[in-house]
Amino acid sequence: MTEHDALVFLIALALLLGMARLLGEVARAFGMPLVVGELIAGVLLGPTVLGRLLPEAQKWLFRQPTPQKMLGAYTTVGVVLLLVVAGLEVDLGIVRRRGRSAAFTSLLGMILPLAGGILLGFMLPDSDMKNPNQRLLFALFIGVALSISALPVIAKTLLDLGLFKTDLGLLVMAAAMIDDSVGWIAFSMLVGPMQGNSIEFTKLLTMGGLSLVFVAGTLTAGRRGIDRLLTRFADEWHGGRVLSLVILLALVGAAITQALGIHAVLGGFVVGVAIGDSPSLREQTRVTIHDFVTNVFAPVFFASLGLKVDFIHAFDFRLCALVFAVASVAKILGCSVGARAGGLGWRESIAVGFGLNARGAMEIILALLALEAGLLKEQLFVALVVMALCTSLIGGPAMKRLLYRAQEEDVVALLRRGGFVARLTATTSRGAIEELVQILEPRLGHLAVHARNQVLEREQMAATGLGDEVAVPHAAIEGLEEPMLALGLSPEGIDFDAPDGKPATIVFLLLLAPRRLDEEVRVLASIARSVIDSRAREQLMDARETEQALKVLAESAQRIAEERRARGPALADI
Amino acid sequence: MTEHDALVFLIALALLLGMARLLGEVARAFGMPLVVGELIAGVLLGPTVLGRLLPEAQKWLFRQPTPQKMLGAYTTVGVVLLLVVAGLEVDLGIVRRRGRSAAFTSLLGMILPLAGGILLGFMLPDSDMKNPNQRLLFALFIGVALSISALPVIAKTLLDLGLFKTDLGLLVMAAAMIDDSVGWIAFSMLVGPMQGNSIEFTKLLTMGGLSLVFVAGTLTAGRRGIDRLLTRFADEWHGGRVLSLVILLALVGAAITQALGIHAVLGGFVVGVAIGDSPSLREQTRVTIHDFVTNVFAPVFFASLGLKVDFIHAFDFRLCALVFAVASVAKILGCSVGARAGGLGWRESIAVGFGLNARGAMEIILALLALEAGLLKEQLFVALVVMALCTSLIGGPAMKRLLYRAQEEDVVALLRRGGFVARLTATTSRGAIEELVQILEPRLGHLAVHARNQVLEREQMAATGLGDEVAVPHAAIEGLEEPMLALGLSPEGIDFDAPDGKPATIVFLLLLAPRRLDEEVRVLASIARSVIDSRAREQLMDARETEQALKVLAESAQRIAEERRARGPALADI
Repeated sequence: MTEHDALVFLIALALLLGMARLLGEVARAFGMPLVVGELIAGVLLGPTVLGRLLPEAQKWLFRQPTPQKMLGAYTTVGVVLLLVVAGLEVDLGIVRRRGRSAAFTSLLGMILPLAGGILLGFMLPDSDMKNPNQRLLFALFIGVALSISALPVIAKTLLDLGLFKTDLGLLVMAAAMIDDSVGWIAFSMLVGPMQGNSIEFTKLLTMGGLSLVFVAGTLTAGRRGIDRLLTRFADEWHGGRVLSLVILLALVGAAITQALGIHAVLGGFVVGVAIGDSPSLREQTRVTIHDFVTNVFAPVFFASLGLKVDFIHAFDFRLCALVFAVASVAKILGCSVGARAGGLGWRESIAVGFGLNARGAMEIILALLALEAGLLKEQLFVALVVMALCTSLIGGPAMKRLLYRAQEEDVVALLRRGGFVARLTATTSRGAIEELVQILEPRLGHLAVHARNQVLEREQMAATGLGDEVAVPHAAIEGLEEPMLALGLSPEGIDFDAPDGKPATIVFLLLLAPRRLDEEVRVLASIARSVIDSRAREQLMDARETEQALKVLAESAQRIAEERRARGPALADI
Repeated sequence: MTEHDALVFLIALALLLGMARLLGEVARAFGMPLVVGELIAGVLLGPTVLGRLLPEAQKWLFRQPTPQKMLGAYTTVGVVLLLVVAGLEVDLGIVRRRGRSAAFTSLLGMILPLAGGILLGFMLPDSDMKNPNQRLLFALFIGVALSISALPVIAKTLLDLGLFKTDLGLLVMAAAMIDDSVGWIAFSMLVGPMQGNSIEFTKLLTMGGLSLVFVAGTLTAGRRGIDRLLTRFADEWHGGRVLSLVILLALVGAAITQALGIHAVLGGFVVGVAIGDSPSLREQTRVTIHDFVTNVFAPVFFASLGLKVDFIHAFDFRLCALVFAVASVAKILGCSVGARAGGLGWRESIAVGFGLNARGAMEIILALLALEAGLLKEQLFVALVVMALCTSLIGGPAMKRLLYRAQEEDVVALLRRGGFVARLTATTSRGAIEELVQILEPRLGHLAVHARNQVLEREQMAATGLGDEVAVPHAAIEGLEEPMLALGLSPEGIDFDAPDGKPATIVFLLLLAPRRLDEEVRVLASIARSVIDSRAREQLMDARETEQALKVLAESAQRIAEERRARGPALADI
């Protein structure tokens, strides 16, 4: 490594980071995800644009052997840490508690795209393949590539909709987490055989076995060991040791999977899941890792994709359209049918389908690794990237449109025949729930005790503080015919474990008829909407009688609906 | 870059990080700086130990061409970011306000080691040089290497002693900052010519000119531009953009200096200084960068040093002793004489000398760069590393011993003939100072107004909150013959801008005779010592009369002195 190499490396790194962040911000300003801008930065600096305009400069910057390897080191560490961050987002608790009800959705949502992808893989002409001898492996890869989902996009959309903590939200998240995990394991099974020229079934099975052993080992014994280590270091006043430990564990996991012939990213992902599950991991450490990875490593990684391929030369409209169509139809159909079978209404089921259809950054990483392993032609790589971006771009807006067409007067109508407590005397979430069930007792009759227990149980499973001082404890009550709503105000605030840490001053108690998840979604979205702005919340706190509260809620819902229509939907970063 | 390369790189990286952090913790447990353990980790994994025991394994891990280059990329980014963190610690405000009084100390503290180093460079036999033709360049480098100081070690020691905010502390810090900055600029002048075979004076001058233009440009126009950028992004709720911006600026600075033929580290350092000076840089961003760099990059960087050299083979006791002796004698002598000339007593001056004698991580980085540039033989590299570690190891303890031999009864004696206010009525630092000056008015007479103004002015220049709810506003008063002390208590707390953000409940007002800096140090250290434990502070808050307060302080000072003697001194991390 000479001084010249170091110079070229530093300039290339600065250019990639600077351009990626700049265009990322531009993309965000136009309402698109950051990753779109980061990819475009790479396209501009790569063979597509700079290579055409100033081929010598492009070669000097990005294609000298040693600096190129040095950049490779940066993106290798970057992609492992990106998968660690993705792993940290998986909440094993949600999977454990919601896994069963999410099984239909995630199973059908995987099987259909898998089948569609395999079919596509077998039907594409030889000319679309890098190595026609690898037909089976190729088809399996396309199947896996179409079956994964992008957790961050979905999480962001659900948060935007105020549905993150609803049963629908938890169902979608659990299904996406299962999809993601199964997808990465399946992909890592394929990486080993990709190195060879033809596929051997014994090798495929060995890889599958090794992957499963690694994942199972890390998520059981490994997870407990990691938790113990983190707990031991947790009493430290600053997070230095923990930070080193997390990065070290990620590198060790990556090295182990790489050594097994699986890909390093699986190690990063699984270790991320195991670390994220430890209750001793501090929020501060999580934020430091997330910020550093998404702002220092990720932009360079995504921009570097543009260096590898000439996107104009490799753009094949037929392939792009085909991949997008098969991926979207199979995923949306599979997830919708699965969600419907799991008890949602059709409208909500299709919304779930669109949400899980978003492929985001995960798909792009997968496609890059297959390209690097020599399995894909550049044309198909570009088609997968385009599919990932398009599905992410339409996922959020589609979900919003589908879930928001529900009637606007839900909260007001429900509250009119429900209950209102202008000043809750309770100071705990348990007390507040009991107080609000009591106000509904005249209408609940013999169901009251049962209702109280169900809501308390549901609350314990996952707290219902939405943030912004609003909480919506709720449950499905066997025997109930139609939904019931009660509203209680508490100027002192009651802790409902909201994501923003603020105690709730506005508490809606919602009782639902069983197996009516669509209703839950509609009412919760309506509640979230009607108290979304601080003006409405302030006016509501002044209400002393039911009529006053109803008026505030009706006006606010009206106003917000109009603003939303004017503003258009928000988008996730990756 | 093949899968195999990625595997070796990941394993090597995980090993370096894991061993370095582990042995760093072991070193800390034995009361030594982290960097000692990190270096030892490298020695164990490098040619010195692993290379002797398992030469094949060592070669596989650390000497395959591509993985080695990939590690080089990681350490290149690491060293630039390390210098950014070092730059962030430089407080231009302190240099601006204290630069003049620190000039003597820093000037003599640089000139003597520079002269000693140059002399040593000319006197060493040809056999100690890599290239005897480069005698002048070699001598100049030794001079520069011996003249720098290690800011972090000094800052840590001063914080430990409770002297960080005293005039002595500010003087030492300002001197170290000037030394560091001049040292890095001088070094970067030498890097360009090092590449050639013989020294050309025109090249040396060109480099010097370029360095100065870069430093001056970055610290004037660049600094204002950076401040404007940071201010613009400061209202963001999370630090993502700012983090990218800081890393990007560091890379750009590094690339510019590297391109100019100066070394990349100078760019990182100067950009770090410019960024650190912006009032809009959030503490959160500073902490994220500091934590990530010192826990994820620095351990690998310092361990990687051990990979480059066989420390047993290259250990030359004669050279180590010679370098250590010249470096220490010249630095301690120069700084002590400078500090004495600047108005300190001899004991305090020698303490300053030992503090500034610590070379720490900065010296090690400098030595590595010279080794890589082909200027040094491995023997001299090892001697410089050993010198850096030894001077850091003795710096803190020597300062403590010298400053702590002062009489223990200072506070008690001063307070006995001073004033005591059991409950301050003031709520601002200004009010508290006025109230405490008033209580001393009978003894101050006509000096009272002047004293008040001087203390307020001093407070405005640099606030005197020490942290732990203690503040010590103070100033030298022209015309005062002997020091005067007043103590005020405020259970509600008064904001004195302490490093820990806590308002002060215990306020000591200290008036000093002019040009008696030694006295200031003694009294402030004594105050810091007497209220260092929370028990003493609590008891003090209960005191209603002078006698009661005196008793608490006397007992606490006694107890702490005993504990300190038993515990031994603390040490900085790098």
